[in-house]
Amino acid sequence: MKAETIAVGSELLLGQIANTNAQIISRALQEIGIDVYYHTCVGDNEERIKQVFKIALDRSDIIIFTGGLGPTLDDLTKETVSSFLNLPLKLDEPSLERIEDFFKKRGRTMTQNNYKQALIPEGSSAILNKKGTAPGILLKYGEKIIIMLPGPPFEMEPMLVESVIPYLSRLSQKTIFSRVLKFYGIGESLLEEEIKDLLVNQSNPTIAPLAKMGEVTLRITAKAENMEDAKDLIRPVEEEIVKRVGQYLYGFDDEKVEEIVARLLLASKKSIAIAESCTGGLMAHKLTNIPGISEVFERGVVSYSNRAKQELLNVKEETLKKYGAVSEQTAREMAQGIRVTANTDIGVSITGIAGPTGGSPEKPVGLVFIGYADSKNVIVEKHLFTGDRTDVKQRSVDAALHMVRRMLKDTGD
Amino acid sequence: MKAETIAVGSELLLGQIANTNAQIISRALQEIGIDVYYHTCVGDNEERIKQVFKIALDRSDIIIFTGGLGPTLDDLTKETVSSFLNLPLKLDEPSLERIEDFFKKRGRTMTQNNYKQALIPEGSSAILNKKGTAPGILLKYGEKIIIMLPGPPFEMEPMLVESVIPYLSRLSQKTIFSRVLKFYGIGESLLEEEIKDLLVNQSNPTIAPLAKMGEVTLRITAKAENMEDAKDLIRPVEEEIVKRVGQYLYGFDDEKVEEIVARLLLASKKSIAIAESCTGGLMAHKLTNIPGISEVFERGVVSYSNRAKQELLNVKEETLKKYGAVSEQTAREMAQGIRVTANTDIGVSITGIAGPTGGSPEKPVGLVFIGYADSKNVIVEKHLFTGDRTDVKQRSVDAALHMVRRMLKDTGD
Repeated sequence: MKAETIAVGSELLLGQIANTNAQIISRALQEIGIDVYYHTCVGDNEERIKQVFKIALDRSDIIIFTGGLGPTLDDLTKETVSSFLNLPLKLDEPSLERIEDFFKKRGRTMTQNNYKQALIPEGSSAILNKKGTAPGILLKYGEKIIIMLPGPPFEMEPMLVESVIPYLSRLSQKTIFSRVLKFYGIGESLLEEEIKDLLVNQSNPTIAPLAKMGEVTLRITAKAENMEDAKDLIRPVEEEIVKRVGQYLYGFDDEKVEEIVARLLLASKKSIAIAESCTGGLMAHKLTNIPGISEVFERGVVSYSNRAKQELLNVKEETLKKYGAVSEQTAREMAQGIRVTANTDIGVSITGIAGPTGGSPEKPVGLVFIGYADSKNVIVEKHLFTGDRTDVKQRSVDAALHMVRRMLKDTGD
Repeated sequence: MKAETIAVGSELLLGQIANTNAQIISRALQEIGIDVYYHTCVGDNEERIKQVFKIALDRSDIIIFTGGLGPTLDDLTKETVSSFLNLPLKLDEPSLERIEDFFKKRGRTMTQNNYKQALIPEGSSAILNKKGTAPGILLKYGEKIIIMLPGPPFEMEPMLVESVIPYLSRLSQKTIFSRVLKFYGIGESLLEEEIKDLLVNQSNPTIAPLAKMGEVTLRITAKAENMEDAKDLIRPVEEEIVKRVGQYLYGFDDEKVEEIVARLLLASKKSIAIAESCTGGLMAHKLTNIPGISEVFERGVVSYSNRAKQELLNVKEETLKKYGAVSEQTAREMAQGIRVTANTDIGVSITGIAGPTGGSPEKPVGLVFIGYADSKNVIVEKHLFTGDRTDVKQRSVDAALHMVRRMLKDTGD
């Protein structure tokens, strides 16, 4: 079965909000094996709503509207659908009672245009809206299934989860399951070269590469009768991919690298402290987004000035004089320094030139040194990142997090 | 002129990501007087891309594609467009050079499929992509304008702002000018109450309130023949709004509070140091996003542990014992401590409970103390923020930045 979403609302076309409803609906449908082939957004205009509805009826089996069910004059979704299909609007008593109750509870006066919300097309059934006044609408029209849901995501999502998905999953025979492999340190095109034959011959499961800043992901998606069969389809493909590019694989599904690092730190009970220069606290910020990190994260230092590097990290004045703040030697002393002063198992340092100014031929913008110190080793990585100031900060912190991740993996326990 | 966006990418239809590109593009077009009537999302499928392209050609003057320009096999946008319009793909030398350079800079091997990215349809021109390898494409086809941009927003947005908008604004007859007023410390509904009559009677300019986390903005948008007329329409409305709720107004348009704070610090040549506990470095990160801040930002300390508070900020052990790390007294000593140890004009401290755990009846999750110290005063604000861990971090940093902003304004110079 092919599904399509139609979001109705001029605020979307003005760019005031993003169409997150389409994302929420798509994810829910794909989990029950229903393919979504199109998303459409259209404004609060009867003629244009009619046009996109006509197109959708021609190409999709399931059409899910969001928005345009409110009480105001520019809420036109069900009016347009019912007039296009010649189905008169009828009062839905239970919906009316809930709306009246809604206003009574809040001690607000119910206005005439709220009655409009209790009207639904003949032959359709109302979908309970626990969070607002507008009921959803479920309409079977010949072979087509037309669903109308309110626009506010906090109203739409519960209705989707509690009413729409259970109904549609009974119609869908299949399960779709996805597994996401996350890679760091390899470009999208090089990764694809390595698995080209798999990509060419893919059908079920499908393999979809996606490049994000500093990382590439592969989404393996299988369609089957049930979850177990879907996983059985994915396993061999995943194993083949890991065999070829496993050394770049760092995580799965939605897990972020800082979550992995936090997990490894907590599991190995290793404490960490961070000395950041050009990244200005971004690494500490990312790590401290993880609940429970305070057990292992002792402190961070944003040593922007040389004085801070000397006072808080014991970086030697002659090192700064001789090699400069952005140097392998300074990164080394920063990592050792924070580890010693914070008395932690691990010390991490980042020093570089984020730009846009401050670069030189020898030390261009994007030059970043990342230091790692533990009881056994002190390692410094040299990087040259591209992009603007915020890109360099972002890429530097990613590189530092991945360095810690690798070291924690290597040292085992 | 009617415009439409077409986002190409199965990851959108799988609900992996939301189509934020459509929002970014719509907002930008709206500001230059071009109406966006439709957003469409379609998967990486040649036949379906062709179908939606055909529909778009029938109903829109400007078609902006995002996505499907990458090097991989499932990147089909320009291939589909050029085959549908019978325009062969030709190699664009400058683009090829940039791609080769891109890989050389990173010391990465360029693979065959990267050459594919340097191909553009005959008669089109390439749009410079500073953040990635895929050039954008600008194609005039009869009366139609067809634009293709890469999918990753961090690549797409600069190309939109620097190339596409300047080009399209020359074609647009009308000028739409927007002025955004940014408020902090007043709720959306209360703000609306204060200017209700203006909102009801608005036509040109229009006034659109938008609530974001911790702040409310009013977008005043005027449509006119030229920029001057548009500004003349906006001025009296802005003045009336400022007269009523000016005490909550903190900024205009896209200027972020950290940019305002950085501007005020640099202008008054006041140095600052920050001691963060529950915000984990987020305030330092935000301030260090501003180029040139190193002139006034001396250091930051993420004093997660009590030991760090004592060693780096001279917080007294008895203070921590008696009042706890999350207390007015500790916030005070942290602000004074960082100012003294860093020897700066201003010291700022944040200590609180970000959650989800660590709360108690006396000190619930969301309780945050913010300290400010300069040569004249030491002030501590007590807040109780709602939301999850990242919300509390965000709101705390906003409150701290606004506190510094107010103090710098008050102390004049």
